[in-house]
Amino acid sequence: MKTIEWKDNSVILLDQRILPNKIEYVVCKDVKSVWHGIQDMIVRGAPAIGVTAAYGMAIGALNINTDDLNTFRKNFKEIGDYLATSRPTAVNLFWAIERMIACSNESVHSVIDLKERLVDEAIEIHKEDELINYKIGENMLSLLEDGCGILTHCNAGALATTKYGTATAAIYLAQEKGWNFKVYSDETRPRLQGSTLTAFELHQAGIDVTVITDSMAAVVMAEGKIDAIIVGADRVAANGDVANKIGTFNLSILARNFNIPLYIAVPTPTIDLETKTGKDIPIEERDPLEVICGFGSFTAPKDVKVYNPAFDVTPADNITAIVTEKGIVRAPFEENLKKLFQY
Amino acid sequence: MKTIEWKDNSVILLDQRILPNKIEYVVCKDVKSVWHGIQDMIVRGAPAIGVTAAYGMAIGALNINTDDLNTFRKNFKEIGDYLATSRPTAVNLFWAIERMIACSNESVHSVIDLKERLVDEAIEIHKEDELINYKIGENMLSLLEDGCGILTHCNAGALATTKYGTATAAIYLAQEKGWNFKVYSDETRPRLQGSTLTAFELHQAGIDVTVITDSMAAVVMAEGKIDAIIVGADRVAANGDVANKIGTFNLSILARNFNIPLYIAVPTPTIDLETKTGKDIPIEERDPLEVICGFGSFTAPKDVKVYNPAFDVTPADNITAIVTEKGIVRAPFEENLKKLFQY
Repeated sequence: MKTIEWKDNSVILLDQRILPNKIEYVVCKDVKSVWHGIQDMIVRGAPAIGVTAAYGMAIGALNINTDDLNTFRKNFKEIGDYLATSRPTAVNLFWAIERMIACSNESVHSVIDLKERLVDEAIEIHKEDELINYKIGENMLSLLEDGCGILTHCNAGALATTKYGTATAAIYLAQEKGWNFKVYSDETRPRLQGSTLTAFELHQAGIDVTVITDSMAAVVMAEGKIDAIIVGADRVAANGDVANKIGTFNLSILARNFNIPLYIAVPTPTIDLETKTGKDIPIEERDPLEVICGFGSFTAPKDVKVYNPAFDVTPADNITAIVTEKGIVRAPFEENLKKLFQY
Repeated sequence: MKTIEWKDNSVILLDQRILPNKIEYVVCKDVKSVWHGIQDMIVRGAPAIGVTAAYGMAIGALNINTDDLNTFRKNFKEIGDYLATSRPTAVNLFWAIERMIACSNESVHSVIDLKERLVDEAIEIHKEDELINYKIGENMLSLLEDGCGILTHCNAGALATTKYGTATAAIYLAQEKGWNFKVYSDETRPRLQGSTLTAFELHQAGIDVTVITDSMAAVVMAEGKIDAIIVGADRVAANGDVANKIGTFNLSILARNFNIPLYIAVPTPTIDLETKTGKDIPIEERDPLEVICGFGSFTAPKDVKVYNPAFDVTPADNITAIVTEKGIVRAPFEENLKKLFQY
């Protein structure tokens, strides 16, 4: 099961909207269907969106009907502008499009050569994402051992990225190594990414995964079932504060209480040294209906007040280590995160 | 809106199965419909089941067609045996039936007198429950002040009892006093009693209530919105350990972390001095489908492992006070809980 696959000049996307009930793929043969694939959330997760957009640009390039390099580049730029409108707040989307545009401006002999170069670049972007996750997994694995109990929250898995995922990378690598982890996946209310996505992908891969509600985390910890908590992050501030899916802060307090290490798995671009502390990270408040009408009918009075922050900030003090593709960072985070970018 | 009402020799039950989407009442005019009312969970919550059963016995008494006291008592006992089969594990059900049977054995002049006596006894059981909750509320209120932010979990409200509820009693009494509390209600996965029941009943009563997912509790505490956490209990052990709805243990750890008092609101019969510690309380594990198929379709792979303990045990160390109708108990709990039963 692959989240994103490049085949016969098309990009094949696993339809994540209908998981875990149906496993279906959508084949995108033109730019418009890639645009819809991103817009309609057939694919989600920042890295996965970036890779999909890169392939969308490659498909666009292949379909431009000209031999003139200037005309080609003008058309290619327009395709980028169009794809950029599919999810206007997705940073990885713009990053991937810009990288493809930059590549299109390299000097080449012919349009045919440039088309080939752009397909290679998209494949390279895909491979780089896989490699980053692999390295995060390797570094994380050095902190774990065979037989570990792991708790994770939300989906920072293969479905959000390409292969391996970030928080799940060590789990997949352990499996390749023949190690047995026992994974617990918080269902992650309100949108249930922990059960619909993480439990789904680990279960598909044959990994021992158990779904719990978010409120059961303290019980499984007290029962000695958890040796490490591994989560991803949406943004890491310069002081090591971590914004991640709502409920991570809760877990971090439990982790301290039970003396269980909390590891944050992130690619270095997620670390933002321009953001001083967690207080500087804006927290998106989402639709109340996610909480009180998430399943087809109301589970609370329609007009009741609801508080629905999508993320929370875990203070650096509650974090044991931030594990990146470039290495493992421990406290003092402010100092050590800086060092990560110096080499 | 009343959970249970005695009117025209019938018991009127609020249909709790269809809350919060519809407010409908079921009128039970005979014993069979009371049996179904309990069995089908039109009414739920231990105290509410007890009161309903008492009224069911009263209805049964009124419908016994004999002038002979011995025949009456024999028939009445059979009604008790029948009603006892409606929810075979509900302790309050048996307690209420036995109390009505005991009452039927008092010496009276005639069947007519006995019928009147039994109706009065059922009404008395109902009133006693209300009074207990009122006193729990009064005692709890002495720990709070106007403008408080309160967090509660699950439903230990008026819907589970009769009037006031246990955990909600102080909230209703504060409202009667003209105080304004700002209440946060954990939705309480997997069965969502916090949103379908607690948020519903408080909202109906015009109390300021906000629904959050269970994983947001740490955030509202960190934001300074919570001055006290109030929950009910399923059983309190002799050492002060408290079994309550899954997620309470989680909250108790957060409470310690943020230095917020955690109050347990219980009637004294919930305190079981025969149970030494929380370790002696068996924890029911419920159907996995509650977690992964609670809303009409699967939210995880059908055959994934699920852990679904219905309750957890909060250690006495994490509890600020146990608030009963007889007074407020603080640590050392073992010593002070015993004293509660000495007066």
